[in-house]
Amino acid sequence: MRAVTVRNGNVALVHDHPEPEVREGECLVRVHLAGICATDLHIINGYMNFDGVLGHEMVGTVVSGPSELRDKRVVCEINCVCRKCDMCSAGLANHCRNRTVIGIDRRDGCFADQIAVPQRNLHLVPDAVSDEEAVFVEPLAAAYQVVAQCPIESHTNVSVLGPGRLGLLVAQVLAQRGCKLTVVGRNPAKLEMCEKKGIQAIHVDDLVPRHDRDVVVECTGAPEGLGIALAMVRPRGTIVLKSTCAGPGGINLASLVIHEVTLLGSRCGPFPEALDALARKAVDVRSLISRTFPLDQAPEALEAAGNPSNLKILLKCNAR
Amino acid sequence: MRAVTVRNGNVALVHDHPEPEVREGECLVRVHLAGICATDLHIINGYMNFDGVLGHEMVGTVVSGPSELRDKRVVCEINCVCRKCDMCSAGLANHCRNRTVIGIDRRDGCFADQIAVPQRNLHLVPDAVSDEEAVFVEPLAAAYQVVAQCPIESHTNVSVLGPGRLGLLVAQVLAQRGCKLTVVGRNPAKLEMCEKKGIQAIHVDDLVPRHDRDVVVECTGAPEGLGIALAMVRPRGTIVLKSTCAGPGGINLASLVIHEVTLLGSRCGPFPEALDALARKAVDVRSLISRTFPLDQAPEALEAAGNPSNLKILLKCNAR
Repeated sequence: MRAVTVRNGNVALVHDHPEPEVREGECLVRVHLAGICATDLHIINGYMNFDGVLGHEMVGTVVSGPSELRDKRVVCEINCVCRKCDMCSAGLANHCRNRTVIGIDRRDGCFADQIAVPQRNLHLVPDAVSDEEAVFVEPLAAAYQVVAQCPIESHTNVSVLGPGRLGLLVAQVLAQRGCKLTVVGRNPAKLEMCEKKGIQAIHVDDLVPRHDRDVVVECTGAPEGLGIALAMVRPRGTIVLKSTCAGPGGINLASLVIHEVTLLGSRCGPFPEALDALARKAVDVRSLISRTFPLDQAPEALEAAGNPSNLKILLKCNAR
Repeated sequence: MRAVTVRNGNVALVHDHPEPEVREGECLVRVHLAGICATDLHIINGYMNFDGVLGHEMVGTVVSGPSELRDKRVVCEINCVCRKCDMCSAGLANHCRNRTVIGIDRRDGCFADQIAVPQRNLHLVPDAVSDEEAVFVEPLAAAYQVVAQCPIESHTNVSVLGPGRLGLLVAQVLAQRGCKLTVVGRNPAKLEMCEKKGIQAIHVDDLVPRHDRDVVVECTGAPEGLGIALAMVRPRGTIVLKSTCAGPGGINLASLVIHEVTLLGSRCGPFPEALDALARKAVDVRSLISRTFPLDQAPEALEAAGNPSNLKILLKCNAR
């Protein structure tokens, strides 16, 4: 089958990759659409020392598995867990000590014709949700994780820093809460996209940080984002950190201590809430699609995903 | 009067410093004992661009002020606040937007014969608490702030990183909660001091970080402390950050995001709890006193405080 592989930092589109081995408790899924995320680009640059098939955002159809799933459209949680360790026992399975992570950590991903995944990771996609919407479930769930970790009320003063792929999803999730929301970014087109959605947008050059935001969600994906967030958040406020490349070099954490700020690391989130939001059309994801490439043009697609003026780049792996 | 001043990074013992000007709502306090803290040493090295009389840990006697306070022994909160700004109105007066901070930020400190302080910052010292104990109220309150910000139960697995002046106070406060406590440090004498108090102590070279601590309190005062704390804390665990020089250079915050760790900045704490603990003899502070110097030997005292084998260095400013 076709697959996009990473090995020793080299990314390649392979046409004769072996079919996935389907183990006990797993289903084989034919991938329709896959999404390229900043993490994929970091992995190509060496993050996680990943060796295997890239990709973790997908929607597809179950080819083999239990009858109740066969031929059904599904999305897939990325953490493949043991259900036995202390974290799994504590209800924190996403932090399983023995987990592998699809397309990120010791498990083949979805930039391929087919993928084998644990049956319990699958969620059925309602008919009301198209493939183009469903492929956003994984990052949209990560956006919902922000409100799962950090209570947002209507009076909460929140800023999203970095209106990129993830930031625009986070902003929409927050906007639903009716909080006092602003988005801070650099790219005029992305800021305009926020304004069109009724979300106040500020260019970072026009920002005067005043230590007055209750919550700042840091989605820049840039090392300097945390420093800006620290200048924006109020004393005893909260920064939700989504960027894995945040800090360090030059960022002074004294401000975090002096202002007794809470810094919350935030990663994967709840799939059911994301699916429900898409079914209700509560979040617009279609306008975030910059371009869809066929899987055969995966190298061009990855290059396009690295262009900061683009938002989501999709890979069309197979017809629905 | 005598005073230890900092100006343009130069520290000096001045013998003819002007008497403090006592403004409306302030009392004049004759200082008995003052404590030297890591922050004082940072200030000498340029932190906060401080210009004035150094020192913020003290016990003394009210010389002038309202009759109910006159001739009484007092300790003094360090944040001098406006009671009008949004932070004061929100009950977060320690984060007052317009605050000055005694011996730290635009307000003269206590390494002197006398100091003028806001009356509302003063707390009476019970007879059961000696001067040598009362001088620890400010850092002990900062230790109590850890448990004020972060719930500690008997089943909570907590490590204190850095058994220095502050870390040994934090460890004792935590030990009272009956939690599963370990202290991690480098100095054998300080680790032995923990063991004598019945607190398990581990040399940092013998530490095998396993991402298994519910809470890590980072009190090293060293930039590398946060990195060690991140390797010790469990997924979804909490790091309480006390060191204002923590991070950055080389510390990878990806781990904070991947493990969804909460990083809590922690600063000043509740004086009443600290005074109560000292009156009940629930916390031993006397064994933390390495040496007491007369105010006239302030330069030698500051040098001694910079020696990592010493714990608390006190300045005897005036007889009780």
